[in-house]
Amino acid sequence: MIGEIIAIGDELTSGRIANTTSSFAARQLFVAGYEILAMQTIGDTPELIGEVIKQAVGRVDFVIVTGGLGATTDDLTNKAVAEALNRPPTLYPEILDIIRHHMGDTDDSASFLEKLAWLPKGAEVLNARARMAGYLLVYEDTPIFFLPGVPSQMEELLVEHVLPCLADWTGNDDRHHVRQRVYRVFGLHENEINEKLRRLEKEPRSKIGYYPVNSEVHVSLTVLGRSEEEADTLFASLDRQITAALGDVIYGLDHDSMASVVGALLRAGGKKISVAESCTGGLLSSKMTGVAGSSEWFTGGVVAYSNDLKEDLLGVDNRLLAAHGAVSAPVARAMAAGIAGRSATGIGVSVTGIAGPTGGSEEKPVGTVYIGLFVDGEVTDSLFHFAGNRKQIQEETAQTALDLVRRSLLGHVRK
Amino acid sequence: MIGEIIAIGDELTSGRIANTTSSFAARQLFVAGYEILAMQTIGDTPELIGEVIKQAVGRVDFVIVTGGLGATTDDLTNKAVAEALNRPPTLYPEILDIIRHHMGDTDDSASFLEKLAWLPKGAEVLNARARMAGYLLVYEDTPIFFLPGVPSQMEELLVEHVLPCLADWTGNDDRHHVRQRVYRVFGLHENEINEKLRRLEKEPRSKIGYYPVNSEVHVSLTVLGRSEEEADTLFASLDRQITAALGDVIYGLDHDSMASVVGALLRAGGKKISVAESCTGGLLSSKMTGVAGSSEWFTGGVVAYSNDLKEDLLGVDNRLLAAHGAVSAPVARAMAAGIAGRSATGIGVSVTGIAGPTGGSEEKPVGTVYIGLFVDGEVTDSLFHFAGNRKQIQEETAQTALDLVRRSLLGHVRK
Repeated sequence: MIGEIIAIGDELTSGRIANTTSSFAARQLFVAGYEILAMQTIGDTPELIGEVIKQAVGRVDFVIVTGGLGATTDDLTNKAVAEALNRPPTLYPEILDIIRHHMGDTDDSASFLEKLAWLPKGAEVLNARARMAGYLLVYEDTPIFFLPGVPSQMEELLVEHVLPCLADWTGNDDRHHVRQRVYRVFGLHENEINEKLRRLEKEPRSKIGYYPVNSEVHVSLTVLGRSEEEADTLFASLDRQITAALGDVIYGLDHDSMASVVGALLRAGGKKISVAESCTGGLLSSKMTGVAGSSEWFTGGVVAYSNDLKEDLLGVDNRLLAAHGAVSAPVARAMAAGIAGRSATGIGVSVTGIAGPTGGSEEKPVGTVYIGLFVDGEVTDSLFHFAGNRKQIQEETAQTALDLVRRSLLGHVRK
Repeated sequence: MIGEIIAIGDELTSGRIANTTSSFAARQLFVAGYEILAMQTIGDTPELIGEVIKQAVGRVDFVIVTGGLGATTDDLTNKAVAEALNRPPTLYPEILDIIRHHMGDTDDSASFLEKLAWLPKGAEVLNARARMAGYLLVYEDTPIFFLPGVPSQMEELLVEHVLPCLADWTGNDDRHHVRQRVYRVFGLHENEINEKLRRLEKEPRSKIGYYPVNSEVHVSLTVLGRSEEEADTLFASLDRQITAALGDVIYGLDHDSMASVVGALLRAGGKKISVAESCTGGLLSSKMTGVAGSSEWFTGGVVAYSNDLKEDLLGVDNRLLAAHGAVSAPVARAMAAGIAGRSATGIGVSVTGIAGPTGGSEEKPVGTVYIGLFVDGEVTDSLFHFAGNRKQIQEETAQTALDLVRRSLLGHVRK
């Protein structure tokens, strides 16, 4: 089955907000085995809305329409559908009841929201209990799903109601059997990864994609089998080959993050970590504490921008600072040992560098970063030269520091 | 003039990567006074590419096509154009020269990249020196701009070549004169903002939009004047009324961030700040140090997850911790005073709370947050109850702490 996605809203065609719902829908549908012929984005113009829906019905097997279902005057999807598909607005008492129940009879907003209870004739409500119900309209045997434009509402209705309904529509027979995995890679350039995997790209019924995301590359493997068995066999074979070809630059899969992987390793080893940051300014700690449950393995950290704080909070000897400067290997080592000592953790990681745009010199240009690592009494340091703007250098530094911790916990050395 | 934007690529219709170029183009074109009828996203299918371009040429005044111009086998835009618009591929020697010049005659990739030198007959190269040239094709008097799909390359060509070319195409006469401003609001709900501005929405030739972004609401004012003078006058009047209606919940304009506004106030006042964080785990420091030049006004901070670190690094009395718990007003105050003392800054801000998903209790549920503020010897504290998941609570807490600092620097009290 082939589908089409139509997003409606002036805020989209004027570029004021980015359309994220269409990509989300496309991805969910693709993984479930459907193809998307086209995604359209149009403004709140009833004539065009009607025309575009009619065109889609004429060329695909199902249509998803998002946006324009709200209660304000610029929400015109139902009006367009009523006119273009000849489905006059009809009052749905069960929706009205729910609105009144939520709002209370005396509330002014209840009458304002009554507009939500008028749907095109023949509409089947997807989830009457949801704040924005969404509905299915069958037109010339083609199912058209109308969903709210608010991403969270749309995503819930799509996953919980539209996908099951579509699966029922014709049964599973003509769909692909899809297997998909994302390999999260850090420390190898897109071109180098491509080089290592190129020979696997020749496999028909599979597709390998390369997507640089900040300092990482996400490699996607998609297998479209003609049967469950074919999909499983081919997927297992390619998965094995990709894993072997890339090795430990794959730090995680699917929804892992570098920090969540490091956290899982620390928890598994019963270890704790603390952090001393200069140029990343809290980003490294923030990545760690963004992981739920991080208090089990993260005790805390110091953001020491000034030399005084490096001395006072981390116990860095001011003679080291004077002799080598704050951005130096000895200071990185002292910071890592200092925070581990103060926090009484087995592991301490430190970062000192120049994120720019100012502060660089000929000897230590913007992007110069030292990372120190204290592990059970031993201290090491590594020097890096990162490129990019301030934000990119901070991001690359924080990820590299996490990767050094990961490799240390795995007993692997970064090559 | 009305235009249409067409984005091409299987990676888009499968939802593997989000289409950001179309929104960027829509926004640039809208601000320059053009309307966008529709944005389409289609896969690498030559027949459909041809059909969609022809449909667009038939209904709008100009067309922007992005993607599918590269050298790999799945880049099929030029092939589709050759067939659908009857413009056979033609060798452009000036592009070939540049490829050879960059690559060197002996390089294998030069012959691989030769595909880039073949363009549809009649194509006018937009920027021969760019890595991806882009071109203009005029078909039935309608200009069609073909641009690369890589966002940075596409954005540069759009701004530097397409917009000037479009402006020349018919002159400026039939375009709107656009004025636009974004008001960045923190601390007032979208509905309340809407209530305060509703009467201004009646003004014809202007539009007010409301866009919740994380914990903020961005209010956009767009004025479409028939002349420069009309646009200026109406914009000044509405700008005055919006500013008066919303007051100091507007923390900044356009590209300001809460941290950059706080940084500018600190710098202007010759003041320095330090930070003690618990539940935000480095996010508050990270927001501040994300601002270029923050070392002028930010000295550093402590991320104290464990009680030991609150004692050791911030000097919080362990009797306070024992009596009131880490998430309490007295501890928030002691943390703020402690970090300001250690860092010798006039201002210290502290955060202690429960970001979840675990750690809440009946007395102190997830979302309970105390923020302490030390300003020149005086300490205050504020209690908040935030809703949402871990990430949302951390974000809301960090922004609220910054807003408290902002209001303190302005001499305003949060209502």
